[in-house]
Amino acid sequence: MALAEFEKVVRNEEGIATALDILRQRYGERLLTGRSVREQHAHTTSYIPAQLPDGVFAPATAEEVQDVVRICAAHRVPIIPFGTGTSLEGHVNAPGGGISLDLMGMNRVLSVNAEDLDCTVEPGVTREDLNHHLRDTGLFFPIDPGANASLGGMAATRASGTNAVRYGTMRDNVLRLSAVMPDGRLITTARRAKKSSAGYDLTRLLIGAEGTLGIITSLTLRLYGIPQAISGGVCPFPNVEQACQAVIATIQMGVPVARIEFVNGLAMKAINAYSNLDYPESPCLFLEFHGSDAGVKEQAETFGEIAAEFGGGPFQWTSIAEERTRLWKARHNAYWACIALRPGTRGLSTDVCVPISRLAECIVETEADIAESGLLATVLGHVGDGNFHVLVLMDMDDPGEIEQAEAFVARLNRRALSMDGTCTGEHGIGQGKMRFLEEELGDAVDVMRAVKQAIDPLNIMNPGKIIGAGRP
Amino acid sequence: MALAEFEKVVRNEEGIATALDILRQRYGERLLTGRSVREQHAHTTSYIPAQLPDGVFAPATAEEVQDVVRICAAHRVPIIPFGTGTSLEGHVNAPGGGISLDLMGMNRVLSVNAEDLDCTVEPGVTREDLNHHLRDTGLFFPIDPGANASLGGMAATRASGTNAVRYGTMRDNVLRLSAVMPDGRLITTARRAKKSSAGYDLTRLLIGAEGTLGIITSLTLRLYGIPQAISGGVCPFPNVEQACQAVIATIQMGVPVARIEFVNGLAMKAINAYSNLDYPESPCLFLEFHGSDAGVKEQAETFGEIAAEFGGGPFQWTSIAEERTRLWKARHNAYWACIALRPGTRGLSTDVCVPISRLAECIVETEADIAESGLLATVLGHVGDGNFHVLVLMDMDDPGEIEQAEAFVARLNRRALSMDGTCTGEHGIGQGKMRFLEEELGDAVDVMRAVKQAIDPLNIMNPGKIIGAGRP
Repeated sequence: MALAEFEKVVRNEEGIATALDILRQRYGERLLTGRSVREQHAHTTSYIPAQLPDGVFAPATAEEVQDVVRICAAHRVPIIPFGTGTSLEGHVNAPGGGISLDLMGMNRVLSVNAEDLDCTVEPGVTREDLNHHLRDTGLFFPIDPGANASLGGMAATRASGTNAVRYGTMRDNVLRLSAVMPDGRLITTARRAKKSSAGYDLTRLLIGAEGTLGIITSLTLRLYGIPQAISGGVCPFPNVEQACQAVIATIQMGVPVARIEFVNGLAMKAINAYSNLDYPESPCLFLEFHGSDAGVKEQAETFGEIAAEFGGGPFQWTSIAEERTRLWKARHNAYWACIALRPGTRGLSTDVCVPISRLAECIVETEADIAESGLLATVLGHVGDGNFHVLVLMDMDDPGEIEQAEAFVARLNRRALSMDGTCTGEHGIGQGKMRFLEEELGDAVDVMRAVKQAIDPLNIMNPGKIIGAGRP
Repeated sequence: MALAEFEKVVRNEEGIATALDILRQRYGERLLTGRSVREQHAHTTSYIPAQLPDGVFAPATAEEVQDVVRICAAHRVPIIPFGTGTSLEGHVNAPGGGISLDLMGMNRVLSVNAEDLDCTVEPGVTREDLNHHLRDTGLFFPIDPGANASLGGMAATRASGTNAVRYGTMRDNVLRLSAVMPDGRLITTARRAKKSSAGYDLTRLLIGAEGTLGIITSLTLRLYGIPQAISGGVCPFPNVEQACQAVIATIQMGVPVARIEFVNGLAMKAINAYSNLDYPESPCLFLEFHGSDAGVKEQAETFGEIAAEFGGGPFQWTSIAEERTRLWKARHNAYWACIALRPGTRGLSTDVCVPISRLAECIVETEADIAESGLLATVLGHVGDGNFHVLVLMDMDDPGEIEQAEAFVARLNRRALSMDGTCTGEHGIGQGKMRFLEEELGDAVDVMRAVKQAIDPLNIMNPGKIIGAGRP
């Protein structure tokens, strides 16, 4: 099954055997080589076929990460960082074998500086862990990619999610990183100051590098005060265009929406069936507003007026926590609700992001493409940013259907590129989108290769991702 | 006069002569080599001694930039990008000679996408030009470093200024860049989508690179709706600590202040004298709030209550445009007002930024240090970000005083580092702060060197800045 043409990464059998020996001598049974644990550390949540590492090691400290990196560097063995394994583009696969570095044991919250609205965590802390830890401080970390992902993994893929429209992405919310570089050195990319012009922005270089330049061992994150009030609701629209026009008007008027999510008719139907709800089964926007009591009321009312102007509504909103929770639980469960439309299938999630002025056109053309192709697929999106996901439900036993799905994805990615958009708003390139990166950025990819080669000349850091084998 | 120990950049006399010949043949009188134009393109606004380029060329297009870069690359001649020349750390100096590339002729606004809240401009457009161009759209570009700097230069130094606390810095407000790389290739770092996870963040790598990795030839910038209402005012405090505590409380409560600026007692005195005003001459905060009519009233009232809690006030605020303009004009003129405290002197502006919890301590210790050293210096700051400037007024004819000022700056930078801060919040490293960069980031600077070497192996792009000669 050739779902994507991954650039070949050659296995270094001798080096791998030697590194495994050394690691076994040094760490004994902490080095895991059983098949099932290796399977768990290859890809499980993606449609991309699994490629197993040769061993799995869970370091407890940055020093242990350095030790493993030095051993692997000495014997030219790939290292694949692993968090919760919820990435979607083959990021945790081991195309050349090597060591999966499971960072979930490094899960301490190292410090919380409430006055500075920041905290420093190890990479294995998940976003839910962190918010649980913060529960008595009045602060929270907003980035929410849906899955309860590790913060290290979220940084590595430049993740975002439902409330990026207000709070930004991981790019905007990491003040600094510590990372073990391919030569085993531990660096810290910045001080804890809120802004800096001190040299090249290594923090942003590592965010989104998908573990191909170094292993993140700690992150300092921006925190926010929990809003005094939150309101939210669901608003139906007669069609996609009008929903998108309402989004554009809302953003343009400067309404500081915290979330503005699009769910198409089929996905609404799936959500109703899955969660036993009775939302309208036309294109809907899910919204949330953060602010003062007066502020969230004003925002919701302003949005209601905008929606009405574009034929939408009624916009029923509430400030009652239980009702909001039900609403967002339904939105978060949309992935499973959609899968349940066709049990036994696998979901392939696309991730294009286009300028918001092109969004309606892009979604409408994509829905027509879905209808024409005969695929079963739903559309959901973080439309405040112009980012939407098509979830294609594939029968993995039907090669023809897989081929059809892949052709659809290629058409969608190229449609987004033709609208000055990107093939990935938040999932990353991994293995799955390498062939679109060149189409998207042209010669800029050569500059990425030069950076990769300079920082990781042996190509041991998560090889075969983003820019293939990492060699020009 | 050895104000700073700049790493040596060796002049390549033969290459420079050849490149000048070729450029003269190709561009005739557009290549300027007169002394006065070369002086204007070396440093004029900084205390750092000028180092003149050998020629000045103003390209009209990206293709001309490519042409000059290819000629300079072929003969290993430095290229120093030049905008308005308002940077402060020797960025436009030519320690190894070479060609000053004056980008102010590339000053077209290429497109404004009002629906997408973005625009694409050439690097020589200044922030005031851009906002003038946008005047009928209801949109504006918020970043305001004080000087009417070029947007290319602002990106190159990762500039920010008074309203970064709300709108972020250039890092946060550039969607993508086009740049001519050292080999003459023109790359575009991203598509126009609002977010992307497509490979390494080359946009952020070039922002703050101070022209050492490539020449920016266009920028796509985020725009914002002009707020429906703006309110603002000045609030006096009995001392620095209480002013800083009020800032922390304001940020922590999530009041979305657009500007919150600290001005110390001596600077207030200077402002009053210079602009014929009668503000209190104790430590003050200057504030501005953006939002709806109700929103800015609520914000101003909330701040007034917080200020009172910390002994500050009365906070007199207004929504009347003329009064606000007078207030911010006074703040913007603070540099000249302070210089006027001691006519004939030069200002040396420091730029530390610390976690906000350490801000009061840092300012208090610094004021004590100023008093002890006998220097004349004022303190102003973007305190919402923990960033403040000390403006030291130096008699440039008194070597002892210059030495004393330099020693003071070193103490201040190290004080900030000891508080987990940075030596530069927004001015950049340039020549002036190279020696502090290693102290600040240690081994991470080696990673910067590796990136520099990979992208600019001939070290022709603004050599002798940030990381010295650019060689490990």
